[in-house]
Amino acid sequence: MQVSRHDQKLEFILRTAARIFAEKSYHSTSMRDISRATNVSLAGLYHYCRSKEELLFLIQDNCFGRVLERLEQQLQQVDAPVVKLRIFIENHLSFFAANMAEMKVLSHEAESLRGDLHAHVSTRKDNYTKLARKILQEVQELTENRVVDLTVATYALFGMMNWIYNWYDPQGKLGVHELAQHLTQLFLGGFSPGLLLEPVTTTMRIENLSIWTHGLNG
Amino acid sequence: MQVSRHDQKLEFILRTAARIFAEKSYHSTSMRDISRATNVSLAGLYHYCRSKEELLFLIQDNCFGRVLERLEQQLQQVDAPVVKLRIFIENHLSFFAANMAEMKVLSHEAESLRGDLHAHVSTRKDNYTKLARKILQEVQELTENRVVDLTVATYALFGMMNWIYNWYDPQGKLGVHELAQHLTQLFLGGFSPGLLLEPVTTTMRIENLSIWTHGLNG
Repeated sequence: MQVSRHDQKLEFILRTAARIFAEKSYHSTSMRDISRATNVSLAGLYHYCRSKEELLFLIQDNCFGRVLERLEQQLQQVDAPVVKLRIFIENHLSFFAANMAEMKVLSHEAESLRGDLHAHVSTRKDNYTKLARKILQEVQELTENRVVDLTVATYALFGMMNWIYNWYDPQGKLGVHELAQHLTQLFLGGFSPGLLLEPVTTTMRIENLSIWTHGLNG
Repeated sequence: MQVSRHDQKLEFILRTAARIFAEKSYHSTSMRDISRATNVSLAGLYHYCRSKEELLFLIQDNCFGRVLERLEQQLQQVDAPVVKLRIFIENHLSFFAANMAEMKVLSHEAESLRGDLHAHVSTRKDNYTKLARKILQEVQELTENRVVDLTVATYALFGMMNWIYNWYDPQGKLGVHELAQHLTQLFLGGFSPGLLLEPVTTTMRIENLSIWTHGLNG
């Protein structure tokens, strides 16, 4: 993919903005803070985006867009519900472990957008949640002993995964693939007791999972 | 307990501040906003607390203090690890379902305090987390098939419980006691596969679970 100098610079600005929003919240970040951190003049910033709100929108929209797109790609030609669930968990965790600042911004600033921008991101998020719920439903249909409510289970799964930005260190000794295995085991064992859980043999693709596709410098 | 008019007023201020912090974040809330919402003059507010930071501290400190104190009371004379775990989950969920704004403030503003105030709240939180971990460890020791890492499991449990402020409506059709049962089942089934899960017969105490002990008006 040919990436223009303009897009590279925009990504650098978005990545930096995400880090600052995560550190000190969207509301208490000014365009001046972003200008200082990126070394791009205020006038320069406004060449890339119309407002601070548009920066937040682009971060959130990119995140949900990318994680959903990667998931849909990986689910092609997979039929077994339990395998789908494993792929879903592994995709979500590996994506957000590589984008922890963005994850915090998605979680903490979900209500900071207004109007159309909010509606657009909410639709993306709903589509992602619906896909997760559909996978869980398929798993549940294989299960004889259905004891846990599907809605509670869906949000519990998002909760256990999304909480990682509070404690998990992607550079620590527990790799994200192992983390995904533990959480899959924990969730599936409770959600679908008795379903056979063979050791996972995934073919992890070595790839750049950062939401931002390019190098560190604009 | 005899509660002074001063304490009642302070609680009213803290409760209102928690709601505003939850709505628009600590950083973008001013003492003037709190003055407006409480109908207490700025000078009046400073009679009850030295700073906005002290308000945040009192909210966080009260929350961790109260939830831990209630848990310790309920755990007295309980020996069975699985019962302890059930009590822990039920206590945490019922407490925070009654204090959703405070829960959001604990989660989103964990890093907003500095220095001694931050250290004090962190110690409280650590004590609470350690107690949770100890209960999980006791449960795990009963389990033959120990497949899930204790640290991952502890944070996964906090994640699935704390995420409720994003989706759960305490006034909706799913009662908090039912929610606790679903999450206990989900967690225990995965964490300790094979442990017998009898239907729970708790003796729920009817009580005021709001962190604030008094009426709605200062």
